[in-house]
Amino acid sequence: MPPSSESAHLTTLFRSIVASNPPNDQNPALERLVYEQVATASSEPTEVTYEDIPIDPHHRGPAKWVRPLHASPKHVLLFLHGGGYSFGSLASHRKLCGHLAQSCNALALMIDYRLAPEHPFPAALDDCVAGYRYLLDQGFEAKNIVTIGDSCGGGLATTVPLKAIREGLPAPGAAVALSPWYDVVCSDSPSLHNSAETDALGTLEGMYVIRDRYCGKKGGSGAVDPADPTISALYASDEELKELPPHWVSCAGDDMLRDDGTRMAENLEKAGVETVVKVHEGMQHVFEFMAGKAPEADGSVREIGEWVRKKIST
Amino acid sequence: MPPSSESAHLTTLFRSIVASNPPNDQNPALERLVYEQVATASSEPTEVTYEDIPIDPHHRGPAKWVRPLHASPKHVLLFLHGGGYSFGSLASHRKLCGHLAQSCNALALMIDYRLAPEHPFPAALDDCVAGYRYLLDQGFEAKNIVTIGDSCGGGLATTVPLKAIREGLPAPGAAVALSPWYDVVCSDSPSLHNSAETDALGTLEGMYVIRDRYCGKKGGSGAVDPADPTISALYASDEELKELPPHWVSCAGDDMLRDDGTRMAENLEKAGVETVVKVHEGMQHVFEFMAGKAPEADGSVREIGEWVRKKIST
Repeated sequence: MPPSSESAHLTTLFRSIVASNPPNDQNPALERLVYEQVATASSEPTEVTYEDIPIDPHHRGPAKWVRPLHASPKHVLLFLHGGGYSFGSLASHRKLCGHLAQSCNALALMIDYRLAPEHPFPAALDDCVAGYRYLLDQGFEAKNIVTIGDSCGGGLATTVPLKAIREGLPAPGAAVALSPWYDVVCSDSPSLHNSAETDALGTLEGMYVIRDRYCGKKGGSGAVDPADPTISALYASDEELKELPPHWVSCAGDDMLRDDGTRMAENLEKAGVETVVKVHEGMQHVFEFMAGKAPEADGSVREIGEWVRKKIST
Repeated sequence: MPPSSESAHLTTLFRSIVASNPPNDQNPALERLVYEQVATASSEPTEVTYEDIPIDPHHRGPAKWVRPLHASPKHVLLFLHGGGYSFGSLASHRKLCGHLAQSCNALALMIDYRLAPEHPFPAALDDCVAGYRYLLDQGFEAKNIVTIGDSCGGGLATTVPLKAIREGLPAPGAAVALSPWYDVVCSDSPSLHNSAETDALGTLEGMYVIRDRYCGKKGGSGAVDPADPTISALYASDEELKELPPHWVSCAGDDMLRDDGTRMAENLEKAGVETVVKVHEGMQHVFEFMAGKAPEADGSVREIGEWVRKKIST
């Protein structure tokens, strides 16, 4: 089934973003401004208020509370935005986060984690784990917290609990990953190599660029192994995975990262973690960006909300 | 008195915007993305909700309702964003608008008017007058409507009532102009010629570029005279000006456009229009962008709110 005309708009937007990038692949600041256009995809979620707060001196900016008017005050999403660890902001994902929070009947805290290449691994992970600690310190029970994100933020939705558990913290109640980037090695997902014609945003070359920004160039000084499980959860052992909370993994059929999601879901299931994986055929990377405008995005956001509300009893 | 350290941040932000503009002065699309960074200046106003609505098939995008939780439902700001008729969006000004709406205890409707050069005069004015008509059609009384904007949107805060009155509509209850661009001819304001060292954002050459985008190059096909009073309210006759509602004009001392505001205030007073003009020394163009972060911005937003609430009895 072809995408709805509304979802087809995301293809147009992505192609425009790719086309409007300046012909200089070493200008992350300008690339970030271009990427911010993803913010135009979602409609405003109505009945949501916002508040900027500083939560950690190590963050490059404030965090943002996202509060649906009638949300349960005891339940919260730790929202981790996408952008390949190098782009994205609280502004680019504010509306998407608002739609998800409304659907989940929960508050959300968006973390403005530090970006690569200025701040390579483990800056983003550390900031997001600090955000998780902040929620626990504020009195939220771990079982009432959901880690949720898109693209690299989908990877973080899993690596943040992994790292938190290693640090002796309790696991959150659930994790939700939208078009997640689970294999930062960029090797074995078939979709990574055969989606050049369908994926309107990503390219294999582009994935290598942002991988190297986050992990350093292989063999370079300070480089880390992208197969580290706190970078690529796909390489975590069953022993570690089995401690993770229930997962919802939303994959987009036309996305280079589709099989990052399906492979991770297999690993989670094999380790005994309750996992729902949905492959949305004909959809672009993070098609949920069209929340409030396209039926496929609204359908996925609604399903996620129904599942999350059951998992954490909002 | 030097600006607060918080307000000094705006100087840094403006210089960064100027520096990050691609070396191609004929790429409005990319310049717009760069300009969007002004959105980072304001903090999130808390207790405000938003809603995107379509209000006119001629608009390039939706309008946005901005609703402070406890605002009077009968009073409304028609918010007209700045950006030299060529930049700016509902996203770049959303938070500034939210702060002003809260301070005025009123709802606000932001108009996503069409931009030059793709859409020269009278596209922006027509869209904003259509927004005014929309509010009247929705049942708002003219006396409970305030036209308000910054920079070119400050100009529109005056030209929209002028045009509306020409079309036989009742005048709004008040108008508020922040760092307004009232003289699109770009000729006689002393500050336009002697602020090169203090104004961190604008240049005389840049003003000519955006003037020509909106009005066409002098002598070119389809060019209009920037001295038309519905482009530059500074050239309106006393006869027309006297029909206008009370005005609040906020000028920034270090702004090239400072004297556009002070000159217009003189004209308004001469025509018998109740006018308050404030010159904020040491401040940058639209220093109110720092709302929620800098004392000067918060002071101006508070004073504007106190005045508006008296004028329209919210």
